[in-house]
Amino acid sequence: MQKPSIPKGTRDFSPLEMSRRNFLFDTIKSVFRRYGFQAIETPAMENLSTLLGKYGDEGDKLLFKVLNSGNFMEKVSPEYLDDSKKLVGQISEKGLRYDLTVPFARFVVQHQNELNFPFKRYQIQPVWRADRPQKGRYREFYQCDVDIIGSNSLLNELELIQIIDDVFRALKVNVTLKLNNRKILAGIAEIINAPNQIIDITTAIDKIEKIGLEAVNSELRDRGISDEGISALQPILTLSGSNEEKLAILETLFANVEIGKKGIEEIRTVLNFTKALTELNLPIELDLTLARGLNYYTGLIFEVKAADVKIGSICGGGRYDNLTGIFGLQNISGVGISFGADRIYDVMLQLEAFPQTTADSTEIMFVNFGSSEAVYALPLVAELRKNGINAELYPDSAKPKKQMSYADAKGIPFVALIGENEIKNKTITVKNMLNGEQSTLNSVDELIFFIKK
Amino acid sequence: MQKPSIPKGTRDFSPLEMSRRNFLFDTIKSVFRRYGFQAIETPAMENLSTLLGKYGDEGDKLLFKVLNSGNFMEKVSPEYLDDSKKLVGQISEKGLRYDLTVPFARFVVQHQNELNFPFKRYQIQPVWRADRPQKGRYREFYQCDVDIIGSNSLLNELELIQIIDDVFRALKVNVTLKLNNRKILAGIAEIINAPNQIIDITTAIDKIEKIGLEAVNSELRDRGISDEGISALQPILTLSGSNEEKLAILETLFANVEIGKKGIEEIRTVLNFTKALTELNLPIELDLTLARGLNYYTGLIFEVKAADVKIGSICGGGRYDNLTGIFGLQNISGVGISFGADRIYDVMLQLEAFPQTTADSTEIMFVNFGSSEAVYALPLVAELRKNGINAELYPDSAKPKKQMSYADAKGIPFVALIGENEIKNKTITVKNMLNGEQSTLNSVDELIFFIKK
Repeated sequence: MQKPSIPKGTRDFSPLEMSRRNFLFDTIKSVFRRYGFQAIETPAMENLSTLLGKYGDEGDKLLFKVLNSGNFMEKVSPEYLDDSKKLVGQISEKGLRYDLTVPFARFVVQHQNELNFPFKRYQIQPVWRADRPQKGRYREFYQCDVDIIGSNSLLNELELIQIIDDVFRALKVNVTLKLNNRKILAGIAEIINAPNQIIDITTAIDKIEKIGLEAVNSELRDRGISDEGISALQPILTLSGSNEEKLAILETLFANVEIGKKGIEEIRTVLNFTKALTELNLPIELDLTLARGLNYYTGLIFEVKAADVKIGSICGGGRYDNLTGIFGLQNISGVGISFGADRIYDVMLQLEAFPQTTADSTEIMFVNFGSSEAVYALPLVAELRKNGINAELYPDSAKPKKQMSYADAKGIPFVALIGENEIKNKTITVKNMLNGEQSTLNSVDELIFFIKK
Repeated sequence: MQKPSIPKGTRDFSPLEMSRRNFLFDTIKSVFRRYGFQAIETPAMENLSTLLGKYGDEGDKLLFKVLNSGNFMEKVSPEYLDDSKKLVGQISEKGLRYDLTVPFARFVVQHQNELNFPFKRYQIQPVWRADRPQKGRYREFYQCDVDIIGSNSLLNELELIQIIDDVFRALKVNVTLKLNNRKILAGIAEIINAPNQIIDITTAIDKIEKIGLEAVNSELRDRGISDEGISALQPILTLSGSNEEKLAILETLFANVEIGKKGIEEIRTVLNFTKALTELNLPIELDLTLARGLNYYTGLIFEVKAADVKIGSICGGGRYDNLTGIFGLQNISGVGISFGADRIYDVMLQLEAFPQTTADSTEIMFVNFGSSEAVYALPLVAELRKNGINAELYPDSAKPKKQMSYADAKGIPFVALIGENEIKNKTITVKNMLNGEQSTLNSVDELIFFIKK
């Protein structure tokens, strides 16, 4: 029989990985809840009509499609058979969730009359993409999204910044927040009269440090930006200094560009809000190279970088003015961010930021010296559990050495030994697995105190 | 544009439903952890070779199959096209998880060299079945499984009974535990020389109360049980009294039936263990009609019934001696149970057993009276959150009435009002949303105390 395996790009998570992942998700969740966000969940399968066309042609190809049940070929006429692309619409009507954003938009439209707006929701669920698997890229991975929908207030943007600060402080990961505004990018496009070349421009700006101003200008020329455009871009390409200095330069530039001015004003408002929060010490940097690919963003956009580990963005998002429009509900503005759980996990591993013990860790194991000793131990173990301690009684009366290796492999810090002598003297011998020290305790209460201290 | 919808048999979960579901799952998880069980997760998609043939012909039909990516028809020869059954093997190699048991067996075999046996794992994940949807039956639903694998000790069975007791006590649901042993059923089959008719017999026994002994005997005759067999069955069909009385009668019957004797001994051992635990007050009833359909069980089997709500079993499981054998790893015994989250949820709804507030509830909302008032409130709200209180500042300076209805709809118990006067006097006005009472507080510390009390 061949050894069983799992589909490529998918993963099993071991107890150790799960204890870390749960620590990560629980931390994120508890911050979301502090701010009044509430969980929703949507089904793994959505109708393909909900998903198709929402992620571009490439996205459509990367959707996992679920075969219709039963005799799915029954009603398929022969002309569909030559072509997978035509056939798929005949034999599959459901697909696996590709992200949490489109299902969320669908959810808001479908349940609009039951929801309490502004609607603050978080959602932590896996998504699936038929991408080519590679290091750090999986076909099944979790997204952690948090959004406020139905409010234009920039206090929501502030709140997301606070959440970013709280989450990464709790995870002990130093980060920098990059901030930009799609309205500023739209203003720049207006100045150089190239509304569709924003990505070309941000890509070019991004290269300044590496290849220098001259090379960037020539690249912009190659990409079809006019000489006047390039000339107008110069103050932006060489923008530097504090956020306030950058905004001042942009302000001059946008003297006659309404959308650009609005973008600056929004950034200023949010930065001013942060000043009311003395404990918010997240470094925030206005970064014009930040564009974020998704075309539904319309206002402030965010991206979080780990300060001490070289890796892509670990969190990002922004304001969207019409996400639900794709499902027919117009003019509902929202703003949200998504935490990249897999990358944050990798960062924390590298930084050794995971705690040694988590909610999933056993705190003490009782050695099983035989049936009567085990029965004697049963109520003691139960008493520990009642007091909130994760405790095990080894189920078999195996050799003590074997039982000790089990405790060791599971990282259990204490082992209780109750043999004939302990039963006679009504004591409990406890061994500290880290330093080998043994202690003799006289009651369960003493043991509880001993473990908790 | 047509209103968006989701595939039949699937569900969206609203914030209220999620807060209840999270309470349910968190309670179950925390009990699992008290006993030293650790989480694992497996991918939603498994190779079809892992899943097919494990759930019977009916199960194979109910598997959701995932279409291969790309040009999946390219290599399909024409002879496969007439028949969906033949074609599916050509165009699909992955399926959605149907339960957590087969993936767990696959996991144990695949990772056997990394695991620490006895391996105590819990797993809470959705499963998918292409069943005909009906009330209480869904195409996507969660299973909560807990298993110990790699130990023969009956202390494991005891531990599962303790877990059942702890979980339902924490959920405030009164239950009865039904217990049986596949070895007792095998003993009965041996006595009447009908090894394959165990289900006929248990079904017949189950009807005694409704249709009476005579009708049951005649039904057994119709099902092909011999007159000698039916005569031998009489003491079993009329079995009553305490667990000990039932075991005594069975003991006489099994005088020469080894497997039956073994079954009785196992039940006795576990019932004796429970006597060491004075706080374990779960009613346990030996029930010979309990068979559980799954054919991998070999020892004790369990089923939990809600005492105060008419509904099927809400938890069940048992001992299996060779689950991993299907993947080539022989002779690893395990025992496990599965909690039926959807049914437990329904029971708790009927019993009104869910708490009013959960970890997802906002405890206080600050009314937004305008930009400067909001900025004044920002550090106060932050201070509450730092002290573990879920707090919101309404993002827009909408009409107070609208803000109050938001708080009301979200079930927020307190609303803080900080207007011009409060800012001048450095006070905080708090309104209790349940009784309408207003209080004036003089500091954030007072407010924290006020909310927590």
